[in-house]
Amino acid sequence: MADRIRMGMVGGGRDAFIGAVHRNAAALDGEIDFVAGALSSTPEKARASGRDLGLRDDRNYGSWEEMLERELARPEEERIDFVSVVTPNHVHFPVAKAFAEAGFHVICDKPLVHTVEQARELMAIVERTGVVFAVTYNYTGYPMVKQARHMVREGRLGELRKVIVEYNQGWLATRLEETGLKQASWRTDPARSGVAGAIGDIGSHAENLVATVTGLEIDTLCADLTAFVPGRRLDDDGNLLIRYTSGARGVLIASQIEVGEENDLRLRVYGSEGSLSWRQEDPNELIFKTLAGPTQRLTRGNDYLCEAAQRASRIPSGHPEAFLEAFANVYLAAARSMRARAEGREPDEFESDYPTVIDGARGVHFITKTVESAADDRKWTEARWGG
Amino acid sequence: MADRIRMGMVGGGRDAFIGAVHRNAAALDGEIDFVAGALSSTPEKARASGRDLGLRDDRNYGSWEEMLERELARPEEERIDFVSVVTPNHVHFPVAKAFAEAGFHVICDKPLVHTVEQARELMAIVERTGVVFAVTYNYTGYPMVKQARHMVREGRLGELRKVIVEYNQGWLATRLEETGLKQASWRTDPARSGVAGAIGDIGSHAENLVATVTGLEIDTLCADLTAFVPGRRLDDDGNLLIRYTSGARGVLIASQIEVGEENDLRLRVYGSEGSLSWRQEDPNELIFKTLAGPTQRLTRGNDYLCEAAQRASRIPSGHPEAFLEAFANVYLAAARSMRARAEGREPDEFESDYPTVIDGARGVHFITKTVESAADDRKWTEARWGG
Amino acid sequence: MADRIRMGMVGGGRDAFIGAVHRNAAALDGEIDFVAGALSSTPEKARASGRDLGLRDDRNYGSWEEMLERELARPEEERIDFVSVVTPNHVHFPVAKAFAEAGFHVICDKPLVHTVEQARELMAIVERTGVVFAVTYNYTGYPMVKQARHMVREGRLGELRKVIVEYNQGWLATRLEETGLKQASWRTDPARSGVAGAIGDIGSHAENLVATVTGLEIDTLCADLTAFVPGRRLDDDGNLLIRYTSGARGVLIASQIEVGEENDLRLRVYGSEGSLSWRQEDPNELIFKTLAGPTQRLTRGNDYLCEAAQRASRIPSGHPEAFLEAFANVYLAAARSMRARAEGREPDEFESDYPTVIDGARGVHFITKTVESAADDRKWTEARWGG
Amino acid sequence: MADRIRMGMVGGGRDAFIGAVHRNAAALDGEIDFVAGALSSTPEKARASGRDLGLRDDRNYGSWEEMLERELARPEEERIDFVSVVTPNHVHFPVAKAFAEAGFHVICDKPLVHTVEQARELMAIVERTGVVFAVTYNYTGYPMVKQARHMVREGRLGELRKVIVEYNQGWLATRLEETGLKQASWRTDPARSGVAGAIGDIGSHAENLVATVTGLEIDTLCADLTAFVPGRRLDDDGNLLIRYTSGARGVLIASQIEVGEENDLRLRVYGSEGSLSWRQEDPNELIFKTLAGPTQRLTRGNDYLCEAAQRASRIPSGHPEAFLEAFANVYLAAARSMRARAEGREPDEFESDYPTVIDGARGVHFITKTVESAADDRKWTEARWGG
Repeated sequence: MADRIRMGMVGGGRDAFIGAVHRNAAALDGEIDFVAGALSSTPEKARASGRDLGLRDDRNYGSWEEMLERELARPEEERIDFVSVVTPNHVHFPVAKAFAEAGFHVICDKPLVHTVEQARELMAIVERTGVVFAVTYNYTGYPMVKQARHMVREGRLGELRKVIVEYNQGWLATRLEETGLKQASWRTDPARSGVAGAIGDIGSHAENLVATVTGLEIDTLCADLTAFVPGRRLDDDGNLLIRYTSGARGVLIASQIEVGEENDLRLRVYGSEGSLSWRQEDPNELIFKTLAGPTQRLTRGNDYLCEAAQRASRIPSGHPEAFLEAFANVYLAAARSMRARAEGREPDEFESDYPTVIDGARGVHFITKTVESAADDRKWTEARWGG
Repeated sequence: MADRIRMGMVGGGRDAFIGAVHRNAAALDGEIDFVAGALSSTPEKARASGRDLGLRDDRNYGSWEEMLERELARPEEERIDFVSVVTPNHVHFPVAKAFAEAGFHVICDKPLVHTVEQARELMAIVERTGVVFAVTYNYTGYPMVKQARHMVREGRLGELRKVIVEYNQGWLATRLEETGLKQASWRTDPARSGVAGAIGDIGSHAENLVATVTGLEIDTLCADLTAFVPGRRLDDDGNLLIRYTSGARGVLIASQIEVGEENDLRLRVYGSEGSLSWRQEDPNELIFKTLAGPTQRLTRGNDYLCEAAQRASRIPSGHPEAFLEAFANVYLAAARSMRARAEGREPDEFESDYPTVIDGARGVHFITKTVESAADDRKWTEARWGG
Repeated sequence: MADRIRMGMVGGGRDAFIGAVHRNAAALDGEIDFVAGALSSTPEKARASGRDLGLRDDRNYGSWEEMLERELARPEEERIDFVSVVTPNHVHFPVAKAFAEAGFHVICDKPLVHTVEQARELMAIVERTGVVFAVTYNYTGYPMVKQARHMVREGRLGELRKVIVEYNQGWLATRLEETGLKQASWRTDPARSGVAGAIGDIGSHAENLVATVTGLEIDTLCADLTAFVPGRRLDDDGNLLIRYTSGARGVLIASQIEVGEENDLRLRVYGSEGSLSWRQEDPNELIFKTLAGPTQRLTRGNDYLCEAAQRASRIPSGHPEAFLEAFANVYLAAARSMRARAEGREPDEFESDYPTVIDGARGVHFITKTVESAADDRKWTEARWGG
Repeated sequence: MADRIRMGMVGGGRDAFIGAVHRNAAALDGEIDFVAGALSSTPEKARASGRDLGLRDDRNYGSWEEMLERELARPEEERIDFVSVVTPNHVHFPVAKAFAEAGFHVICDKPLVHTVEQARELMAIVERTGVVFAVTYNYTGYPMVKQARHMVREGRLGELRKVIVEYNQGWLATRLEETGLKQASWRTDPARSGVAGAIGDIGSHAENLVATVTGLEIDTLCADLTAFVPGRRLDDDGNLLIRYTSGARGVLIASQIEVGEENDLRLRVYGSEGSLSWRQEDPNELIFKTLAGPTQRLTRGNDYLCEAAQRASRIPSGHPEAFLEAFANVYLAAARSMRARAEGREPDEFESDYPTVIDGARGVHFITKTVESAADDRKWTEARWGG
């Protein structure tokens, strides 16, 4: 193995749930070193967080601008290879843009940015600089999601007819944003979260999961968004009917007020000859049904799975893998793409198997169109993504 | 116990799946005798079916008109108490109307009739004659559905916010109507099935389940109906967004082309303080979640359930009850209402716990409005039921 | 269809849970009429129960002896065809013996009798008189149990290696027999229940399930029986290691003190090439695993099942069947065997598909040997059943 | 945070499944650095494996003896803090002994060693040197196992009556050891695996899980061990009846020939007032049943769990954690104990929450007694562990 890939992180300091997830995910396979950080927008908090996490003082920065400047000043063989952007949404754009333009690879949390224009600008920069740009739609990192994608592509389901995707959560069923919980406060604040609440935070995962597994393209959609909790400014519940360009139909549900639901992302895909069902809370299995014969339960870690599913798996069947392992798969593929670039070659299909800036941009487009439909009396709205 | 209640059946001859279900349901508790029938629209087939089932020759009729006339000619203490109407949909109206007008009680399959006008006419007859008129929305006969209704009424969920109801089937994923299967052919024929396919056949069960458990009233709806199977004239897949008059939101899915799904009717109800989930294929349990504390799994047959749930249950917990027992609960309650009437008293709340002609009429209204929305470019359509 | 089969019942009066189950099961298919009864050992209670259930006065008997005598005095075409014995265990023997010797068919609850000698005497009577004698090991009436038996016989599992059977209940975890509950009091009383408690009441179901599905014959067993609840005289928990004559190994667990378990009878059968798993609380599915390939979930009501499973099923897949339907299958097969006898022909394989007096006798042998092992310091004990 | 803990590894080279698991587990939290290794018993294979994994040449050793000698020669602040022993079983003893005697902390795979004498010798060394010595009974690292232990200790189950523990696998159902698969070959070889096969490899996990959750001590046991696969010299299937010193009863099942079972470790604990059920393949939930009231499903990541369960959890509820996270919990607690020692203080209860050399020794005792019972005609055998 070549040297480890060096990561700098922006955001993710004390109290930030998602920063720790990204660090665990990056650490898991021992191929990425976390060497630098600007872990908060408040310099002293940033440095305190960095000390907690064992960052060396000279790479424990007070701001991302400082990190960018001083990392660029280091010799290339020491410099971070990529920046991991795990801030609230509104900070994604400036950080990702600045580092990508400076030639650093980027791994950015979702939703990518606030507007389609920003997204297209990032796409253009990636196109121009050739940097690796991954977006942590982590759920598509699950091996059984890769297996589902494989089976759709192989035609095992026949012609796709219908997709039901749900992302059921209940943690925002009460006015949690008033308790001081940071996760709740920025997610319900338009200035930091963007134009959407639940649809942005988790609806975009649902959209990405469908697009990844099925390849279907949205044609039109009709969205009913609601803010149930009094005083909340962004939707905490959204329900959509979707028509795909192929003629397939879709239902998308994303809610954060469904009391007692934890993180219940689930997907069902129905074709003319077979159907698939997968649930994030039980991620090691994939249910396959056909026109005849018993229901099949495929489980992770078995020889009968496709190569992408097998490669994305670390341990044998029955030894469950879960959220962090799937998240780590995004990091690992992106890191291996970076290594391939460093070695002057194109990443192979497995090294390239991570969500890109294009997935991120399409997600922003989806969010935008959903909000547009809801605002326009919930009318059916054209929502094709030009690409 | 008084004498048994005497049943005459219209429809349900050889090859008719649902007729046998009704007979099993009626027989289960030993309180109803099946004594007369006009089991097919073809007289010789009707009589042959009656002989198969052990009907006496003098009550094994060639047509429902004959049955009506000759039963009326019998002394009252021998005459059938009620007619069970289990024909294809288009025959429900004339039979139910004629028998109800003649003073017979009626148990009629769903959807009740083809048009709202017919439904209102039946309502008026029932109002006038005072006959017992049950509609076999059998799924609300399940004890755990009664428990769900109870918990909603008790306020255990707080204010209702959202309902997701699904009825997933796959048996019409191929062009089964061309194989000669009777169940498939009439259900896909507008002349016999009515204006809707899946929405009429199973969507109406979903509508009734929501109305029964939650009491919510539909305000507006937006429906996307599709006939996926080439050549099919009625919808085999339907997806709806719903707004209830209380401000609650809903999603309703009814499909008969979801490959591999058997009879997957499921309901989730979310309130401000709790949520409920029930699945017909696992009907002995009800899942209750709250803002804090572990998920609770309530199971049929336990002391902690409401009285309606306990009374609707025949055997102890862990000894599962299922479809036929729930179906039998509709028959049993209706039969006990008939007995109460015979005894000159009002049925009590448990004897009255069955779906009525009003539920049936509201279902027809729902089907009509759904088809209307779908036909009008899937626009949001006003769908209030005046009652 | 010929005339209905006429049933007389002994036991099963007011407050007796199992009597109602037998009556529901007998009624379900409309082929059996319940026409006579001696429903309690107390004459006045017997007659009151009979009135509750609508028995005619002249066939509502005060004792089984009276029923036997007076039914014999009736003309053959009116006389009951069979007696259903649903009393506490100690009454099974005299009733079953008397009626069988008089030429009546018998359906008897389990465990059959108290001693192997009694069981052999009944076997001899059945052999001599040729009556139909069914024992209500109702769990083998489930369609998916028949499917499991079929797959074992077809060799789908290869050579059988191991069987794990469990019957987990918790309803006797406290001293329920002191609360006056009749079910609890006789089951924990050696004079009425026999030498065993849990092992007799439910362990015998477990034994029968294994024998039916696998055909394995017990060679030796080692039993650890315990009465956990203070003051209880019979075992309320039993755990056995078993060696079968073929070399297969077994574990059998039967308990009534496992708090919170309802009626969790489950079976796992492992062979050299495949395995099966079935659970009574989820009876419509059967799980099949093989050396390679996904796990298969077979569900009731599908074309791919064996004929015995399909015939034992009344309604389509996804419309669950449960306990009463399985129970009814025992009654229905026995009744059809009676009809075949009446028609002067041998019942075919489906009409004969019910547990017989021999199953009942083998169960008594199993109970006896289990208690013997437990009493002898839990030593391994020879337990072959000569047949 | 202080400096990272430095790990050296013995065993776990190319093709060794468990080595990678240990490395992932050690890496996950970013508190342990993998800096040295002697990754195979074959020097050139050891070094090649080390190069694959990015070990520096001067710490990539050809043998564990070399590693021990040369690490001791380093300055203390560079030297490894602990050795991770992930070799086949027969190598555990010499390596663990040598490193512990030299003052290194040890994390050793299970079963600890081959004989009780070896185990007691290690216990004595740990007692004398004061090193941290963890045994990777990884399944007790699961948060919900800690919750189960907590609830037993709190008396939520009342007096414990019965334990059923199973470890069902099927991967050795065929003669896999002849295919060249290293995992299979050493596990079925007495010289490397020890006196037991399945009982040593997985039965010991089951024993540890019971001991950890319940604190029950085995009094006597009766074991039926079988080698089903022709030519196999060690048991591939074991079934035990157990009596605990408290009067509780137990059943323990450990098998590697149950076709299609993956890694199905499951535990049920029944007390006089409640019961618990946990399954490794669905590790984020714990089922709690009581004498009255609905079944409760506790899920990882919630506030209502005990502190040990909450601390052992990294991410919110609904975001599943699994095998590697549980494994990492053993490493993390052991590493924090090492840090506490380095800081001159006693580890607190959470830092000490890992299986120790005493757990390991008790496991060896259990294996020894199980084999003894099986060999002595499966007699009940005294199996108390003196401690």
